[in-house]
Amino acid sequence: MLSSKVINESHGQDSSYFLGWQEYEKNPFDETLNPSGIVQMGLAENQLSFDLIESWLDDHPEVLGLKKNEESVFKHLALFQDYHGLPAFKDAMAKFMEKIRGSKVKFNTNKMVLTAGSTSANETLMFCLANPGDAFLIPAPYYPGFDRDLKWRTGVEIVPIHCVSSNGYKITKEALDEAYERAHKLNLNVKGVLITNPSNPLGTSTTRDELDLLLTFTSAKKIHMVSDEIYSGTVFDSPEFTSVLEVAKDKNMDLDEKIHVVYSLSKDLGLPGFRVGLIYSNNENVVGDQNVQFWTHFFPTQHLLANLLSDERFTTKYLEVNRKRLRERRDRLVSGLKKAGIGCLKSNGGCFLHLLKSNTFEAEHSLWTKIVCEVGLNISPGSSCHSDEPGWFRVCFANMSDQTLEVAMDRVHGFVEAMVMNTNLGKQKRTMWDSRRRSLINKWVSKLSSVQCESER
Amino acid sequence: MLSSKVINESHGQDSSYFLGWQEYEKNPFDETLNPSGIVQMGLAENQLSFDLIESWLDDHPEVLGLKKNEESVFKHLALFQDYHGLPAFKDAMAKFMEKIRGSKVKFNTNKMVLTAGSTSANETLMFCLANPGDAFLIPAPYYPGFDRDLKWRTGVEIVPIHCVSSNGYKITKEALDEAYERAHKLNLNVKGVLITNPSNPLGTSTTRDELDLLLTFTSAKKIHMVSDEIYSGTVFDSPEFTSVLEVAKDKNMDLDEKIHVVYSLSKDLGLPGFRVGLIYSNNENVVGDQNVQFWTHFFPTQHLLANLLSDERFTTKYLEVNRKRLRERRDRLVSGLKKAGIGCLKSNGGCFLHLLKSNTFEAEHSLWTKIVCEVGLNISPGSSCHSDEPGWFRVCFANMSDQTLEVAMDRVHGFVEAMVMNTNLGKQKRTMWDSRRRSLINKWVSKLSSVQCESER
Repeated sequence: MLSSKVINESHGQDSSYFLGWQEYEKNPFDETLNPSGIVQMGLAENQLSFDLIESWLDDHPEVLGLKKNEESVFKHLALFQDYHGLPAFKDAMAKFMEKIRGSKVKFNTNKMVLTAGSTSANETLMFCLANPGDAFLIPAPYYPGFDRDLKWRTGVEIVPIHCVSSNGYKITKEALDEAYERAHKLNLNVKGVLITNPSNPLGTSTTRDELDLLLTFTSAKKIHMVSDEIYSGTVFDSPEFTSVLEVAKDKNMDLDEKIHVVYSLSKDLGLPGFRVGLIYSNNENVVGDQNVQFWTHFFPTQHLLANLLSDERFTTKYLEVNRKRLRERRDRLVSGLKKAGIGCLKSNGGCFLHLLKSNTFEAEHSLWTKIVCEVGLNISPGSSCHSDEPGWFRVCFANMSDQTLEVAMDRVHGFVEAMVMNTNLGKQKRTMWDSRRRSLINKWVSKLSSVQCESER
Repeated sequence: MLSSKVINESHGQDSSYFLGWQEYEKNPFDETLNPSGIVQMGLAENQLSFDLIESWLDDHPEVLGLKKNEESVFKHLALFQDYHGLPAFKDAMAKFMEKIRGSKVKFNTNKMVLTAGSTSANETLMFCLANPGDAFLIPAPYYPGFDRDLKWRTGVEIVPIHCVSSNGYKITKEALDEAYERAHKLNLNVKGVLITNPSNPLGTSTTRDELDLLLTFTSAKKIHMVSDEIYSGTVFDSPEFTSVLEVAKDKNMDLDEKIHVVYSLSKDLGLPGFRVGLIYSNNENVVGDQNVQFWTHFFPTQHLLANLLSDERFTTKYLEVNRKRLRERRDRLVSGLKKAGIGCLKSNGGCFLHLLKSNTFEAEHSLWTKIVCEVGLNISPGSSCHSDEPGWFRVCFANMSDQTLEVAMDRVHGFVEAMVMNTNLGKQKRTMWDSRRRSLINKWVSKLSSVQCESER
């Protein structure tokens, strides 16, 4: 009696990406209450600079208290009737997005439609740009949630653009053409290309050359170009972030009705609970009234953000400090992994690493099960991101405290050394271990054979 | 290059319901800034008891300031990771819904999925229960927004159940059977019945007998029963509100997986900007994880509401005072309209009246245009609610101040008298008018021939 969409589980919730989350939810790590629980490294949230927002709020108590010149603005905000959103908030969003793009792009608030986070923005775009059965090309590996957000309710198909680690997962003309041809062979009508820039799960930004190539390609094919730039403010290392809108401007495509940008404050400001997203587009049908209903944040939230984001001193400092902290986190994790003999793709943005550990998809899956259920770290396997190459994992590093990261690294070391211990080389190395490390390893060794994940049973 | 859904305007935004809103937005009434602007009587919001919430917040500054025992809970809330929602908030929602139903129904928070208002709840239900091209039967007249919310993105069809004013728009066995047969003749697969209880636009609650009939019908046909009860707390006059869940319990259908209830705080608590809605269902696929993404309110909002709604003294008082104020408002409007010779359906809930003024759909449309553009009141014509009988209008009365209602009533009187003045009867009556009224009428008379609505050009 239910719809086929609900019954056939095309919502993608059975992906190992979500299964890992479910395991985490059953047994979440907590330093004091549950120190042997699973550490959540599958959640791309950024909590590193939350203290800056807290301290700003401490300095501006009238904002959270919804006062202005000591008068309450709560009623005004709660009863505000224009569903296009609070003008002051949209202005502040435009300024923040311009600052992230080094003022090389101007944003017009009339071309902006607010949504409930980027999930809703991306789904709304799919509804507007494609009919059920039409396809979008997406560079793979891609964010596992897209199988739900872009496809489930819209009926749109995703055709992966195969990217390879050997050239740093570059988007090439050949890869684009091959994906387009593949879609045609599948009788799919390609309606556009969607990228995440910086890429989730790679943690790397799209280069100016790649963006130029993408716009040349979509323009020649007369299809849409969607750029999800929700991590644009996190680019912490060279090359610096380039927006598709900047390249479009250079190519005199500023007013192109087929270029659309998705943005959100969940990552750059670390406020996923605020559910603030938007679509930026020249296309009137995309930013028209019929989509206005899909934003859903409460005006007091917009009021708070309008005040926060229009404080230029705050935003400048926040972006700078946040990038520095993300870079330090990445460096720490990369060097920790290196010590354990684990390599990873050089990242310059986002809040995750793409690391390599096994050679086949079977080995990847079996290793992933061990890491989640025995080592106690929820990371996302490359297969859940539709990676063509086996053995990659996405590891998020900004959604936890320094202490929790330390625990996670200790577990990785313990696990790797326990594996090594079972080899001859391990027996030689054993003498060098300190007692703390030895007890950790013993714990993993004893777990290795006895524990099995619920989702695997 | 866009989807057919966006291009063919099946989003229903071209309904006179939304056109009236657009006219209002171009020229909104404001007592001091724009006293000749359009008064918004097309928006079913309840602002009558907002002062009670404000005063509660004044007494509980720690809630808005996100403090608990003088410690900030902002970080905890902003970084809370369980997307099922704050347990304390769901508990408080369950209690509030039980109170509205006189404790005759118990709510289990595990059967509750939070959504971004009831718009999202209803759309999500359609996605879950029906395939594109399947149909839901809905008693007409019905809320004009359903053409967008239920149909647009889901591809679901609405088949109206024809209800008539002569029996007070009762839902009868004959009307249900006729609608079901009509759907079958149209080759539509009927997946369920959806009602609003109390009815929007009628302002009347569904009787126990009607609910019994509906459950007998949906159960015999093995189809879904969806009850949108977002106005349940506003029932201010007899008969008292009866939930479908109460009747289901009496019929031993408590655990029926085909009964679903939609709720929200937008009407009963007058907080549409909070975007708090939910689906309550026994069906695991409906309240499952795949739908959890569609709630989108920020945890501080849930924290505020958890505190507000768990204050039993507050909720008892709020419901009582709010009902009394709605009743008084209705009485005032009904008697004002009566003086102008306008009759209306007896209402006992909601925040709108269903009133009768013309005889044909042409006359209804032409009168509606005059009322919006010349009299300056945005009301919704029955045709936008898919009324079978011409000449009805929905008039909202709770989204404005007493002063603004006075202005609206003056305008109605002026308009009706201006019409009468053009008849012989009018000429006799003219001597009785006071000067204030006369100047008002002169204003309308001069406007009648010169002004035309932008949407009509």
